[in-house]
Amino acid sequence: MREVYNFSAGPAMMPKKVLEKAQQELLNWLDQGTSVMEVSHRGKLFMELAAQSEADLRKLYNVPENYRILFLQGGARGQFAAIPMNLMGQKGKALYLNSGHWSATAAKEARNFTEIDEINILETDPQLKVKRLDFSDIAEQYDYVHYCTNETISGVEIVDIPNVGNTPLVADMSSNILSRGIDISKFGVIYAGAQKNLGPAGITIVIIRDDLIGNARKDTPSIWNYAVQRDADSMINTPPTFAWYLCSLVFKHLLAEGGLKNTEECNLAKAALLYDYLDSSKFYYNTVAKENRSLMNVTFTTGNDELNAKFVSEATACGLQALKGHKVLGGMRASIYNAMPIEGVKALIEFMKEFEQRNA
Amino acid sequence: MREVYNFSAGPAMMPKKVLEKAQQELLNWLDQGTSVMEVSHRGKLFMELAAQSEADLRKLYNVPENYRILFLQGGARGQFAAIPMNLMGQKGKALYLNSGHWSATAAKEARNFTEIDEINILETDPQLKVKRLDFSDIAEQYDYVHYCTNETISGVEIVDIPNVGNTPLVADMSSNILSRGIDISKFGVIYAGAQKNLGPAGITIVIIRDDLIGNARKDTPSIWNYAVQRDADSMINTPPTFAWYLCSLVFKHLLAEGGLKNTEECNLAKAALLYDYLDSSKFYYNTVAKENRSLMNVTFTTGNDELNAKFVSEATACGLQALKGHKVLGGMRASIYNAMPIEGVKALIEFMKEFEQRNA
Repeated sequence: MREVYNFSAGPAMMPKKVLEKAQQELLNWLDQGTSVMEVSHRGKLFMELAAQSEADLRKLYNVPENYRILFLQGGARGQFAAIPMNLMGQKGKALYLNSGHWSATAAKEARNFTEIDEINILETDPQLKVKRLDFSDIAEQYDYVHYCTNETISGVEIVDIPNVGNTPLVADMSSNILSRGIDISKFGVIYAGAQKNLGPAGITIVIIRDDLIGNARKDTPSIWNYAVQRDADSMINTPPTFAWYLCSLVFKHLLAEGGLKNTEECNLAKAALLYDYLDSSKFYYNTVAKENRSLMNVTFTTGNDELNAKFVSEATACGLQALKGHKVLGGMRASIYNAMPIEGVKALIEFMKEFEQRNA
Repeated sequence: MREVYNFSAGPAMMPKKVLEKAQQELLNWLDQGTSVMEVSHRGKLFMELAAQSEADLRKLYNVPENYRILFLQGGARGQFAAIPMNLMGQKGKALYLNSGHWSATAAKEARNFTEIDEINILETDPQLKVKRLDFSDIAEQYDYVHYCTNETISGVEIVDIPNVGNTPLVADMSSNILSRGIDISKFGVIYAGAQKNLGPAGITIVIIRDDLIGNARKDTPSIWNYAVQRDADSMINTPPTFAWYLCSLVFKHLLAEGGLKNTEECNLAKAALLYDYLDSSKFYYNTVAKENRSLMNVTFTTGNDELNAKFVSEATACGLQALKGHKVLGGMRASIYNAMPIEGVKALIEFMKEFEQRNA
């Protein structure tokens, strides 16, 4: 079978070695004669897996000791609700920075639970560009400030960390978590659905500073009450054990490949190849300012809907899958998360060149 | 490798054929060159899987047309919160029937969201026995009546459906869903975590009557707002696609084996073998009244903690896994869900006889 490269925005490509390992032991995990998905989460072997996965993630991401790691269900959209339920305090208001679809969706959900202010931080003309990251003058009024580090749909990434003074900063990192090293001590809460860089859809990781745990309102569902889940080692209910297992394999895989230093280098190299080619082309273009170009989601267009559709269709036929842009934006999007090898990016560029020759 | 029988209460045994199919196509689903867990939930192929899985479950369980089926995240414990958030109405109060640990836990969670009345329906002396199922005289005061059809920990099953007049009846069927045919039209809502009879942990099924959808309070997380998820075909957020896929294989497997008629016959036969043996033994005993003995979770004890521990340890060494009773009850528990073959029950009984001979 021909090599396939899957540019899906999520659920996205997994490391092949991880899938091969999962396949090999799917019916017989650790010589138990059962699948890992058939054992109790409270059994010794799964508890060890859970503890090791946390230790691995802590090492990989350099998570400080005063932060807890929770493995939850419900995706980032679940956290859109859980964040205000857990973090709203005496100030009674939160600030949401709007840089596109996902940060706006988080703000919309939060409004069902609390009062918020929302500030648009994205310039759209002539390019998509984040125009403001210093909120130190106003942050004190809020219980927390929320933003999204990578807008998957538009391909806008915010690398610099907003200045919010001493107010807790909450980041939805669903689509760029573990893509490079970050200074976690700058954040109050980091959360991410797994289905881009961590594992399969169905598990959600929350990294939270100790002092922010314990203030949940009474009607917080216990599976999202950070204090309850901290005290239960993320097992107040049956966790999504198979998804957790796959995350644990991904963490081990990243460590074995050299940790996030290696990951970051690879991601920078892949994105540079693709953006350099886009900048050199008169046929395709990307509308994101250089400093906000996502390493994970590279959006581009020919400027012609018919040509775009032809591109996607012919690319798919060549084994370059899932390149259609999100419906709200159109065009194309190549999601090149950690698991995408540089060969995939090269194959995409080759196809783009050849398509340009035939259609320019 | 020797045959292993896994009596885990959940996450529990999966049908071997399902795991083999998943293993075979783990890296190449439908000849796409990718795993099913790597494709977009909004892609044509996954949407087809989702639609077919719903159709299969509808057929298998004989779900009436005026009921929706939702595939959600968060487990039954998530629904413990979602149920009051979605169903509380003008009466402002719900009735919870307490038959053991799980129904009590559901009631405890509900109290964080609404006012409830709780009625103990379990007699414990001399046997565990459900003493009352007619609430037609009081049900009208409540927005809904909640109960648990099978208490996994004690092995108490409620086969007769409570009489609650026209008040919606809500059932946590996590540990006996799809174990036999039921009259769904008697229920307002049925919900179940997947990890016993449906698939792996991490996906939750809700079967709900149309007219009960649309009354969620404002601060209901959208991933649990039944109207939002109905309108989004359970895809308001990224669903747990791999878990959904495994459920779809389980449904197909059950249909291929003859549907729930066959499943029910097998479950009755397995449970009869084990309970008949227990009743014939002077060494082991079960304390559940015959009419409430669970087909799914068979609890038993020697009456001696040391002997029980020895039993569990030696059984494990013989490939009879996860027989230790829940910590709140002690003793032993054999969970014999749909996927447990009758050979597993026979092997257990053989071991029990042999253990009795050596220790009586």
